[in-house]
Amino acid sequence: MPWPSAVELLGSVAGLLTTISFVPQVVKTLKSGQTRDISLTMWLTFCTGVALWTVYGVLIQAWPMVITNVPTLALAGTILVVKIRNMSRE
Amino acid sequence: MPWPSAVELLGSVAGLLTTISFVPQVVKTLKSGQTRDISLTMWLTFCTGVALWTVYGVLIQAWPMVITNVPTLALAGTILVVKIRNMSRE
Repeated sequence: MPWPSAVELLGSVAGLLTTISFVPQVVKTLKSGQTRDISLTMWLTFCTGVALWTVYGVLIQAWPMVITNVPTLALAGTILVVKIRNMSRE
Repeated sequence: MPWPSAVELLGSVAGLLTTISFVPQVVKTLKSGQTRDISLTMWLTFCTGVALWTVYGVLIQAWPMVITNVPTLALAGTILVVKIRNMSRE
């Protein structure tokens, strides 16, 4: 595997930031169990979009996109699941 | 400008979904004015990451990324601004 170029490094930093950005939201949501201010439509649409970004990343061989979008989907998916579980009582 | 390929079309759909996903959250946040369940750290880190994705998209000439990340930044930035304005009373 060749050494990543500066461009790939930039993409990786971008991906790292957008991926880890979801960690505090997941922690907050799991801790409080509260999702009243969180939009279901947003997270449903967002998760679908991230799944498609991953496929796009594979097709154009933009590996930073693929590597970072998979954990993003897991994190965003967690928020979505808590929101759906809470919906009956919101 | 050449007709977009199937791959570019997929990237555009992915980008459209992740971008429009923020619209219901922006509407919800502006309507309710409530951001208690929203994580500041998430939106701060996310906005920085999206800005870097845009630069990465320019550098690898992945135009669907550039075109869709700019409005994403505007929408996510709106949520961030409301959250910051609300922080003193949360």
